[in-house]
Amino acid sequence: MNVHVLATTLRGLGIELRRVVMILDEIDVIEREVRELAAAHDYLFTSGGVGPTHDDVTIAGVARAFGVPVVQDPSLAKMLREHYKERTTDGHLQMSMIPEGASLESHESLRWPTIRMKNTWLLPGVPEIFKMKLAVVAAHLSGGVGFLSRSVFTKMDEGDLKAILDAVVAKFPDVSVGSYPKWSDETYRTKLTFDGRDVARVDAARDAFVAMLPAGEPQRIE
Amino acid sequence: MNVHVLATTLRGLGIELRRVVMILDEIDVIEREVRELAAAHDYLFTSGGVGPTHDDVTIAGVARAFGVPVVQDPSLAKMLREHYKERTTDGHLQMSMIPEGASLESHESLRWPTIRMKNTWLLPGVPEIFKMKLAVVAAHLSGGVGFLSRSVFTKMDEGDLKAILDAVVAKFPDVSVGSYPKWSDETYRTKLTFDGRDVARVDAARDAFVAMLPAGEPQRIE
Repeated sequence: MNVHVLATTLRGLGIELRRVVMILDEIDVIEREVRELAAAHDYLFTSGGVGPTHDDVTIAGVARAFGVPVVQDPSLAKMLREHYKERTTDGHLQMSMIPEGASLESHESLRWPTIRMKNTWLLPGVPEIFKMKLAVVAAHLSGGVGFLSRSVFTKMDEGDLKAILDAVVAKFPDVSVGSYPKWSDETYRTKLTFDGRDVARVDAARDAFVAMLPAGEPQRIE
Repeated sequence: MNVHVLATTLRGLGIELRRVVMILDEIDVIEREVRELAAAHDYLFTSGGVGPTHDDVTIAGVARAFGVPVVQDPSLAKMLREHYKERTTDGHLQMSMIPEGASLESHESLRWPTIRMKNTWLLPGVPEIFKMKLAVVAAHLSGGVGFLSRSVFTKMDEGDLKAILDAVVAKFPDVSVGSYPKWSDETYRTKLTFDGRDVARVDAARDAFVAMLPAGEPQRIE
């Protein structure tokens, strides 16, 4: 669920989600993955493992990946104490520990800050909070040209569509063309997507595809 | 969606899903991933990219990973011709191409065979078909001792639970204890899971946890 929301948000920002890796709560594996992914990509977003319990090892793993210790952030500790008041436990205060050198990113829409370590954003796993925190990410990363997408729905199958698609793909190398068969929908059988940054080219690719379809097609254009 | 179904099916077979990687339809990336994942794990399951269109490059990527060419399988070609009859296109026949040396695994529940290249199973991306094909996988991989899981639901938060959980984790190293905060449910706030292969130990860990909870907890045990 978080993957879908992240991909959609990033697309709107003009950022392509190139790779998703799901791993267990093992600190060595997290460390290795974060080191490699953060080095090979413009941005990295982690989800989960930021709570106070034994299986929450993402912050420690990220710190190791960047070669820094985990330290307590005084402002976070203060926020936690003010929130939990006399009920505050060591477990609660555990959530004020961050990689040394990390920054706390804030946004008016959200009370709690989001931890960012260089190009790596540490987001929670709980879907509702993950989504809220993405608003903070979007506010910081906005400014790029977003991707836009057009869709065409047809009752033809991929075997029938292949020749038409090959022609469109050859003619529009700057437009990403996707083909998605649907099994349990009576209104269409294959959904074609046309994605890119240039609206004129995306529309032209879609229209070129539609023009090659036989009579009675497409079922729907979006 | 396919990830969830795969994880659940494998758990029942006693197989731990250790790693999920989502990548784009790029043959070089698929080749590298398959080579590394197949070598480092007992089994690998791919999802998607097995249709006939330009973006379906999984079979070619898997073949490259294992250092073999893609060849036409006569029995698959025959099945495709019998299915599509006079409507058969080159696109349809594209789906009879498999990595050389791959086997076609069948099961009475499913007409179309599933392609397996050594320890790597090639499954489709369409969720309904992915799920059906998993029945074939399960029939082939059955025989292990499945994992079992118990759950406890509480209105306490993770900060309050940390000390209790740490005690249980220390006492039951053979039981995997998970903690999952819930945001939008009024009946509980944190779900604790206890997983393992030995029912007595899993139950003992769960019971030890429940015994340490304060009055009024837990909300529910499963």
